[in-house]
Amino acid sequence: MRDVAQRAGVSIGTASKALNDNGRLKADTRTRVIAAAQELGFRPNSLAQSLHRTRSMTVGVLSTDSFGRFAFPIIEALEERLAEQGIAIFMCNATDDPEREKRHLDQLLGKRIDGLLVTGRRMDKRPPVAVPGQTMPVIYVFSQADDPEALCLLPDDYGGARLAVEHLIGLGRRRIAHITGPESFEAVTLRHRGYRDALTTAGLSASDTFFRKGKWSEAWGREAVADLFDDAAEMPDALFCGNDQIARGASDALRERGIDVPGQVAVVGFDNWDVMTLAARPPLSSVDMNLRELGRLAGERLISMIAGERFKGVERLPCSLFVRQSSDTNQS
Amino acid sequence: MRDVAQRAGVSIGTASKALNDNGRLKADTRTRVIAAAQELGFRPNSLAQSLHRTRSMTVGVLSTDSFGRFAFPIIEALEERLAEQGIAIFMCNATDDPEREKRHLDQLLGKRIDGLLVTGRRMDKRPPVAVPGQTMPVIYVFSQADDPEALCLLPDDYGGARLAVEHLIGLGRRRIAHITGPESFEAVTLRHRGYRDALTTAGLSASDTFFRKGKWSEAWGREAVADLFDDAAEMPDALFCGNDQIARGASDALRERGIDVPGQVAVVGFDNWDVMTLAARPPLSSVDMNLRELGRLAGERLISMIAGERFKGVERLPCSLFVRQSSDTNQS
Repeated sequence: MRDVAQRAGVSIGTASKALNDNGRLKADTRTRVIAAAQELGFRPNSLAQSLHRTRSMTVGVLSTDSFGRFAFPIIEALEERLAEQGIAIFMCNATDDPEREKRHLDQLLGKRIDGLLVTGRRMDKRPPVAVPGQTMPVIYVFSQADDPEALCLLPDDYGGARLAVEHLIGLGRRRIAHITGPESFEAVTLRHRGYRDALTTAGLSASDTFFRKGKWSEAWGREAVADLFDDAAEMPDALFCGNDQIARGASDALRERGIDVPGQVAVVGFDNWDVMTLAARPPLSSVDMNLRELGRLAGERLISMIAGERFKGVERLPCSLFVRQSSDTNQS
Repeated sequence: MRDVAQRAGVSIGTASKALNDNGRLKADTRTRVIAAAQELGFRPNSLAQSLHRTRSMTVGVLSTDSFGRFAFPIIEALEERLAEQGIAIFMCNATDDPEREKRHLDQLLGKRIDGLLVTGRRMDKRPPVAVPGQTMPVIYVFSQADDPEALCLLPDDYGGARLAVEHLIGLGRRRIAHITGPESFEAVTLRHRGYRDALTTAGLSASDTFFRKGKWSEAWGREAVADLFDDAAEMPDALFCGNDQIARGASDALRERGIDVPGQVAVVGFDNWDVMTLAARPPLSSVDMNLRELGRLAGERLISMIAGERFKGVERLPCSLFVRQSSDTNQS
């Protein structure tokens, strides 16, 4: 307690009052003591108990598209992290309906939540959630608010693409194509940029000859392969695909043309979705967005912000590459 | 108000007190008035407000496996239905860990939830959730408790299988095979029974010649097709598959053998999961478990139970059949 008091620049009595929430203190004094306690690794239980007395120990999770397969691992890991601190989550789903979102928000505020997490992939930045007074912490995860003061946690799409393409270059591939989704998604633009920069850095041409954008579907993967390989003057020796469904469709189309994967063409997808990667023949290499890590980081940040810390800006978490047979020339 | 009072067998003053929660009333009087109000379609807002004064207006959702793709639509629809009544949901995930489940439950009870919904497919019946005093409504949805007093809401797996097989019989198919998942799942047993009963009812043999059980995967679907079609004395003219991944793998394997779907072999899957059904060539017919309906029904029942009604036993909701090209001989 002495250390906490010293660090916060208050008396031991004040620090104790702040952490035990008895006695009247200015809000910023209390915030300073709690921040100091956290920095010093003060026992989380005491901290939780201390927070408990003035907090509802609940946070809201607002999904702006359906709780899809991307939101799941994020929310699951968030919930795990918050449960360690005794904080429970309210779930709301507004499916891109501003009217419903407002109703949900009113309801959450009525329950005096301590913080709010907004999730759900959208094609463009969303308007910030209108929280009266702006004192409650809000975090956007796998979602971006059009507000420089907002904290947005996202996967590093650019870096993930570079990982994939550098891996393919490392295999000796030189004619690497990129088949991806609709350009209205920021992720498509960022992954495309990562693809081009990785090629340029390696001294390879990054022209658009081998670039195809379309849909997030297997059918589009098959179609793009037909376009790239049928009657082509020069055929790619590797495909970096914008998601695993595209990669799955592309690898099916290659097999059906009698083109060996990875012997003649190596394939890497994005999302590391086992339903696709493991069912493909051969199993697909893929970039993993580490969504559970993203959810856990969101929980971490939310706990700090509830204790008074402030964060803003866009924070991007690194992706990982999972190499399977589709790009492993030693195993094939 | 007069109607409500009459139906509940109380004075208008008592009905008013019960619905506005002022004045002291016996719990069962209040329950009777609220039930009457509901039956008469009393304005939900007033009812919600009336409930509000003694309730926390929150319920807990406890998932015993990860929030998977089956839990999503259920929770989404549940949340929608409860939000109409101003009730918010707490989400917890216990991933088959009894220790963690207990901690979550304690936390939920500490927040004085009005009811609890337990979800998550398991291979066998789970022990009932231990709620002290047993006064709080608990519903198991897409999950079964080993307790005759519990209310369990499930899809009608048996009926869904019958739908699929009767459809195939209607197309004139006579040698209908069933490829399915591991028999440790109750759903596998029930769907198998539905398959056999549909065949028997139509005067067809229901021997095990055309029955294969294995895994819930595409690879197993391909393997089972090899087993059923390679060097077979008699080949099936239709496949009813236990899920869409099996059906997808089976239909790929048929195409690669040069067997026309649905011309020579019609295929029907189970789950109606668009990621599989729409990517398959041709698109797959499939049985839909109507999970959103199941979630909505759970919300409905929970609201009634919070208002004092009691339900118990296993309630099964009908499945629907979505016919696509893989079993539509007119379109092919």
